[in-house]
Amino acid sequence: MSLTIKSHFSNQFTLSFRTPVSKKLQSSNLYALRNKPIYGTNPLLQLAMSSVSGRNDGGTKPVVKSSLIDPDGGVLVNLVVPESERSLKTGEALKLPKVKLTKIDVEWVHVISEGWASPLKGFMREREYLQSLHFNSLRLESGGVVNMSLPIVLAIDDDTKERIESSADVGLVGPGGDLIGILRSVEIYKHNKEERIARTWGTTAPGLPYVEEVIAPAGDWLIGGDLEVLQPIKYNDGLDHYRLSPQQLRNEFDKRQADAVFAFQLRNPVHNGHALLMNDTRRRLLEMGYKNPILLLHPLGGFTKADDVPLDVRMEQHSKVLEDGVLDPETTIVAIFPSPMHYAGPTEVQWHAKSRINAGANFYIVGRDPAGMAHPTEKRDLYDPDHGKKVLSMAPGLEKLNILPFKVAAYDTVEKKMAFFDPSRASEFLFISGTKMRTYARTGENPPNGFMCPGGWEVLVKYYRSLQAEEATQQPAVASV
Amino acid sequence: MSLTIKSHFSNQFTLSFRTPVSKKLQSSNLYALRNKPIYGTNPLLQLAMSSVSGRNDGGTKPVVKSSLIDPDGGVLVNLVVPESERSLKTGEALKLPKVKLTKIDVEWVHVISEGWASPLKGFMREREYLQSLHFNSLRLESGGVVNMSLPIVLAIDDDTKERIESSADVGLVGPGGDLIGILRSVEIYKHNKEERIARTWGTTAPGLPYVEEVIAPAGDWLIGGDLEVLQPIKYNDGLDHYRLSPQQLRNEFDKRQADAVFAFQLRNPVHNGHALLMNDTRRRLLEMGYKNPILLLHPLGGFTKADDVPLDVRMEQHSKVLEDGVLDPETTIVAIFPSPMHYAGPTEVQWHAKSRINAGANFYIVGRDPAGMAHPTEKRDLYDPDHGKKVLSMAPGLEKLNILPFKVAAYDTVEKKMAFFDPSRASEFLFISGTKMRTYARTGENPPNGFMCPGGWEVLVKYYRSLQAEEATQQPAVASV
Repeated sequence: MSLTIKSHFSNQFTLSFRTPVSKKLQSSNLYALRNKPIYGTNPLLQLAMSSVSGRNDGGTKPVVKSSLIDPDGGVLVNLVVPESERSLKTGEALKLPKVKLTKIDVEWVHVISEGWASPLKGFMREREYLQSLHFNSLRLESGGVVNMSLPIVLAIDDDTKERIESSADVGLVGPGGDLIGILRSVEIYKHNKEERIARTWGTTAPGLPYVEEVIAPAGDWLIGGDLEVLQPIKYNDGLDHYRLSPQQLRNEFDKRQADAVFAFQLRNPVHNGHALLMNDTRRRLLEMGYKNPILLLHPLGGFTKADDVPLDVRMEQHSKVLEDGVLDPETTIVAIFPSPMHYAGPTEVQWHAKSRINAGANFYIVGRDPAGMAHPTEKRDLYDPDHGKKVLSMAPGLEKLNILPFKVAAYDTVEKKMAFFDPSRASEFLFISGTKMRTYARTGENPPNGFMCPGGWEVLVKYYRSLQAEEATQQPAVASV
Repeated sequence: MSLTIKSHFSNQFTLSFRTPVSKKLQSSNLYALRNKPIYGTNPLLQLAMSSVSGRNDGGTKPVVKSSLIDPDGGVLVNLVVPESERSLKTGEALKLPKVKLTKIDVEWVHVISEGWASPLKGFMREREYLQSLHFNSLRLESGGVVNMSLPIVLAIDDDTKERIESSADVGLVGPGGDLIGILRSVEIYKHNKEERIARTWGTTAPGLPYVEEVIAPAGDWLIGGDLEVLQPIKYNDGLDHYRLSPQQLRNEFDKRQADAVFAFQLRNPVHNGHALLMNDTRRRLLEMGYKNPILLLHPLGGFTKADDVPLDVRMEQHSKVLEDGVLDPETTIVAIFPSPMHYAGPTEVQWHAKSRINAGANFYIVGRDPAGMAHPTEKRDLYDPDHGKKVLSMAPGLEKLNILPFKVAAYDTVEKKMAFFDPSRASEFLFISGTKMRTYARTGENPPNGFMCPGGWEVLVKYYRSLQAEEATQQPAVASV
């Protein structure tokens, strides 16, 4: 693991949480200015020219407030029980009827328990499920609306439902038999898989990765309730130090005195086109008057489809990108977003943006076809590549987030580097797809110079070669006739 | 046609529109009270105890204000061009590239032009389409939100798209070649049928009536724009006098000095169970202090599936129900809602409610499985029968409407009448389905006494017998072996 990146977080757990300097400031006109579009009526350019500063506790040194955006619902949800109550609650959980979680269920427990889905306090009950499915949002008791585009639900089968009977609470058990938490005041309702899939993905075609992996094998009931987690979810895969909770990220932004945080969601290796747009975004924010914009490079760490690059390889690749200086370690935070991936395009990109509000980011970068994939049975993209950013710009509950659409970057064969695509000389640009990149790595051919930093590219070559070697050993000993 | 019903509208076109007595009243606390739930936190019982009264123009006789609820967006849309401009606009339309409408497209033109879909001013452009599909609502420029659950779109094929080229406006031509209107500042975008179907119906199973009739044969492009209709849409089927526009209905409520209007959407014959709940609703509203609650009996008049009872038969049946005194003609208005039917359950019931806001109804009755049907390929209801009213109670933009869920009525075999179902003596109740009713009518067997008024039942028997006779003549002359 790269020390360069590790060093960003060396102090993270020893930091005391700084009380927000000025709650009043957040509701002031100055603060509100940020959310006003300045580029005419284009909702995709919701950037503003103001910066926010306040005074620190001592009243002398000016301090920049970096908890720049309130979590949804006003309070960041934290469902990990205090250590003092752990043994008591463990004893209680042991006596309850049990629900066995899959690996991906545990990823959702992780997500909910740390407040990424704030104000959600557990797996959805039917009221929340229906609002998510039909409106991509939840109405709060206060009358406000928060975005909630993916149903975050827990499925159980008939036998489990029978075992629970009329128990108000259930214990949650991990795939390895470990006691994970309690779900309280549960509500059990029907899991209409067809409807859930159709409304979430806009298709019911066979071959959707999350559907095949998670929904198809799941039970015909959903169980909602209030979650309590006995201790923070850990994976012990050498990457837990990257898994910063929304609160830890907010603390880190405070520590760095960020006055703008722009989040970049990704599940692929970082090439120089990505770097270009992230650096360009920083430049634009500085131009707008922000003094210390921080990039949250935020790879997704939960379930991904089989042909995506695995998390450990991606994290190694990302660390090389910072080591090689393509991104500036001083203004970049690399952390893992623990959510599983749905590949649900315009529906899912809202979740990706909403969860980053909770982590304290006030700018969100969105590109072409976010959370998209090829149609599983037809030769086309599953989603219109422009729908993601359009839907994001109009989504209920995301009004307070500044959406930054990005221009497409491609390899400029004249300048010999990644550059923003210029349609007036289209023929001079080369689009390097994931498939193309994979072919390069597999055949040992180098991509065009300047496509990716050498250190990062080496990580990928190593990975794809190991994959090839693995595939070779899995070949049948005798070729079929 | 029954004179009893006709008489309700005899003066409708000569009425002058009364200026709302007190605009201020609407925004007063008294008025606001109506929308506050009084039965604890149950969102389905959003009834209130207040009544509204004001003073009339003369200042002496108290007048009840009956324009009880503002149309969505504040202003009722009316897209019929003034008669003075008709010939000019007709001349203009003649010169434009043409889009040929189907019968059902014309039904939508009718719906949009009269303001049922206010604030929608034409077929949806992509921004509106995406919001409808993903959020079941539209955000207004003012920041407010209105409900809009069904995509109201116009499809065109490749050839038509090519013919339009870069023309800003197009002429709309009916199925018979008649010039109907103009669509201005058009936007053409992709018609992803699979996604539209999946997100609207929550299934892509073959056999959805609207999909088979409308979407499957339609073109691969959608064209949105601002609509102008050259003259009011008429059907010349002897039922046009029932087709009151939202403005005409509002005028009628004013004329009757209604202080509550409760709308009942239906597409089936009225049996005594329906009548029971409509009369019971009136009783409840009177108990709450309303002085003159008016029932809007509002059968859907657009496209319905083949095995539904046709509109003309239903209208005759409804008129008998009023003639026989099962519903009180003095407090009932029967009119036709011109929308086509989607059979899209919880998604469509929002449209049914939203459009009645625009027609001036401030109470909406919702029952079991609204806008539902059997799953086209599986042996079950397509939708959870309770989802319709749950979704309706939480739908964005419908907060100002009072939702009245109804108890299930069934035939009480002891009392020999339709009554609210009492689960404590379930075995004494008989549920008479549409299929069962059809079997009665076809075989000439009478339904249990008290199921439907004799006059209404006679209409159905006549219809089903004519259907049988028709089917008989369509039998192949030689039976297949």
